[in-house]
Amino acid sequence: MFDPIETLKEYIRFPSVSTDPAYAEGMVGAREYAQGLLEKLGFTVEVVETELHPILLADRIGNPEWPHVVLYGHYDVQPADPFNLWTSEPFEPEIRDGRIYGRGTADNKGPTVVHMTALARVLEAHPDLPLNLTYVIEGEEEIGSPSMPKFFDEYGERLSKADFMLVSDTGSPNEKQIVITTALRGLVDMEVKLRGPKSDLHSGIHGGAVYNPLLALVEMCAALHNPDGSVNVPGFYDDVVPVMDWERKELERYPETVESYKKMLDVEAFYPANGLSPLEAVRFGPTLEFNGIGGGYQGEGSKTVIPSKAFAKITCRLVANQDPVKIKAALEAKLAELCPAGVQFTFRDGGVAEAYMVVPPNRPNTPADQPAALARAFESADSAIAKSFGNRPIYIREGGSIPVIADFNKRAGLDALMIGLFTPKDNLHAPDEGFDLGLMENAIAAFEQIFKDIAGV
Amino acid sequence: MFDPIETLKEYIRFPSVSTDPAYAEGMVGAREYAQGLLEKLGFTVEVVETELHPILLADRIGNPEWPHVVLYGHYDVQPADPFNLWTSEPFEPEIRDGRIYGRGTADNKGPTVVHMTALARVLEAHPDLPLNLTYVIEGEEEIGSPSMPKFFDEYGERLSKADFMLVSDTGSPNEKQIVITTALRGLVDMEVKLRGPKSDLHSGIHGGAVYNPLLALVEMCAALHNPDGSVNVPGFYDDVVPVMDWERKELERYPETVESYKKMLDVEAFYPANGLSPLEAVRFGPTLEFNGIGGGYQGEGSKTVIPSKAFAKITCRLVANQDPVKIKAALEAKLAELCPAGVQFTFRDGGVAEAYMVVPPNRPNTPADQPAALARAFESADSAIAKSFGNRPIYIREGGSIPVIADFNKRAGLDALMIGLFTPKDNLHAPDEGFDLGLMENAIAAFEQIFKDIAGV
Repeated sequence: MFDPIETLKEYIRFPSVSTDPAYAEGMVGAREYAQGLLEKLGFTVEVVETELHPILLADRIGNPEWPHVVLYGHYDVQPADPFNLWTSEPFEPEIRDGRIYGRGTADNKGPTVVHMTALARVLEAHPDLPLNLTYVIEGEEEIGSPSMPKFFDEYGERLSKADFMLVSDTGSPNEKQIVITTALRGLVDMEVKLRGPKSDLHSGIHGGAVYNPLLALVEMCAALHNPDGSVNVPGFYDDVVPVMDWERKELERYPETVESYKKMLDVEAFYPANGLSPLEAVRFGPTLEFNGIGGGYQGEGSKTVIPSKAFAKITCRLVANQDPVKIKAALEAKLAELCPAGVQFTFRDGGVAEAYMVVPPNRPNTPADQPAALARAFESADSAIAKSFGNRPIYIREGGSIPVIADFNKRAGLDALMIGLFTPKDNLHAPDEGFDLGLMENAIAAFEQIFKDIAGV
Repeated sequence: MFDPIETLKEYIRFPSVSTDPAYAEGMVGAREYAQGLLEKLGFTVEVVETELHPILLADRIGNPEWPHVVLYGHYDVQPADPFNLWTSEPFEPEIRDGRIYGRGTADNKGPTVVHMTALARVLEAHPDLPLNLTYVIEGEEEIGSPSMPKFFDEYGERLSKADFMLVSDTGSPNEKQIVITTALRGLVDMEVKLRGPKSDLHSGIHGGAVYNPLLALVEMCAALHNPDGSVNVPGFYDDVVPVMDWERKELERYPETVESYKKMLDVEAFYPANGLSPLEAVRFGPTLEFNGIGGGYQGEGSKTVIPSKAFAKITCRLVANQDPVKIKAALEAKLAELCPAGVQFTFRDGGVAEAYMVVPPNRPNTPADQPAALARAFESADSAIAKSFGNRPIYIREGGSIPVIADFNKRAGLDALMIGLFTPKDNLHAPDEGFDLGLMENAIAAFEQIFKDIAGV
């Protein structure tokens, strides 16, 4: 009934680039195609209009006593350019050496088709499967999910009736070793803009009197870290959730070493702060990074100018329990305090996102009130993945951010079982995005088992 | 014989933009026109070929017992774009409200015509004027005088037979108050380029392990100044020539105050180092300025990237007696020492230029061996300018750099009498460059007197 490869190929052929109005038709096509798949699976689909790309909200609801799972995915994809770096057309999928290539194959159309195929197979064998399902497929994930807050205003309470959510929009180290992601980092996104003299000045005629805004900027930015690499913003680490022993042990199973990581990035040394190893720091620690700094002459050679303006684009990655609003305020207060008189500052507010963490069952820090259905799903995933892939999953926190997951938790009270289905080979957001067909088939088998276990059939 | 305004107009009409090969014809035209003027004045002109634009080397040599003066000027001009910001065509001079507008009117064709007109008038009255004259007019001043070192290799010894040089390529505060420039700052021009990881990284996935090259850059750059604003490079101030009381007194006569300077730049505070006032610091103190800093995302909004690369373009302005080679080496050593392991650095060498200083006669620090002809020229300039302009000149050091002047000193042993003929109104290097006709006529009269005084007629 549901051929996963043909289904995915068809889904990929709709070029659903959410950020580019030129792809409006592809967006509509992908959404209607996803809607058709959901209807084929027996879902009742509501198209929730937004200011840009509608959200699909689909239900297969039976007895309220049954477990209730929310599935999340997105039908939009990243832009495909530069097109000339693709081996085959990004929107005409091609299979080579056991992998399917095309924009969206891994992020997130492939994983969505995995879920749907598993569901289709289970429902074929058990048409009366005792499982309530709600599917949320949005079309704005690649542009930051701007319509989701309003969606939660309207549908958050309805979603909160579910037990937990199931997501496959995270990664695993390779096609044999699956990761169950236990946390996502939050984000503070801001920019400090400085203005010194009203226009660029000749550095010979005026050098020595004015505070060069680039000097103010480097001094302000340098003061945001301590010599040991830790972040020097008051209260930054106050609420950081500790790292548990079981997390360190899981990380030891991760197929990566400090040496292999150095080689991959081509760096000679790492500088993790707060006593964490480099592999721990990118997953368990918060950061303050400069993403872009600029001011003055940017061309070749030199120009003897004292610039009028300078800027630093700063993001913090936050771990669970840190309050991004509080930290952004502390960072801005610190920068304001550091800015010398004679230099004016303004801030651009790029928004904040909370971190998210879920603890698997039977750990020392598992919440006492963890829903039974979620615990069962975790346990099922552990054995189903071990059986399909030949390796138990690794339970580990992830350094990246998926703000919408924290929002599902905050706005609808749902925790997430995040089973990573893409790997570093898959070239997310880059040319030659692909998806491993062996992983795909193993994942379908695992999800079949997981759906059956949650439903208790 | 020599109508200064018509001569200048004709000179301006040759668009001699040295940096742009499209203006090759204008360069030839301006050079040939200048050569014609020199021949009309009785000079024997040698066209010294260079790799780009030839240098005019012209002599009017008589009795070796006579005083011998070298005059310096340049026939090339800055580019005129943006053309649309000019009130009249840049290469079709126009007179409005007592000023002549056009590219090169002030820098440096107007001052050259002032010198030549004064000479013409003196030579008309005294055809056998007992004065040896050598004119050097180069065509590459606006691109950094790259051919002058080789020129000095060949002609330095011949030029060293002269007593001193006369230059009008510096500024005065307004058309009534002439400045005699007593020093020019030297220059160290370099860039530090950093490389961290081999490519830009996702700041979520990798943030916390690697030394962000922007962090290394801001920390390295911030460490180059002390909290009091002084430069933190070993030995930076070791050889700085002290400020003399007479220099501070001359500066008091300068028609500018700290308040008017603040207002002009629109800054609330100044940060001069080493106990200098802001007006002193830009003239008497050395500096280290960041002219351009960049790395990572430069567009609107944010991009969560750890950049692979970052750079800082740095120039130092140096005062007399500082050794730019020594200071560049100390700066590079300091940056190398500050660069953390795991971040690679390279330097771009933008070259160095020595500062230059000349002390007028009868000051406590006047060199005992100052040539008598130079002392006489200074004294003549003082009274001639007072008579023509109604105000005695101010003797003050200048913050900018004219490396070729230091080279004349170093390579041919010549000191320079620098009489500033352009003012801030003249918009050098900018649209609507102009030259004041009242100043022009007063300056011609002053130079007539100066030439006569030097010759002793």
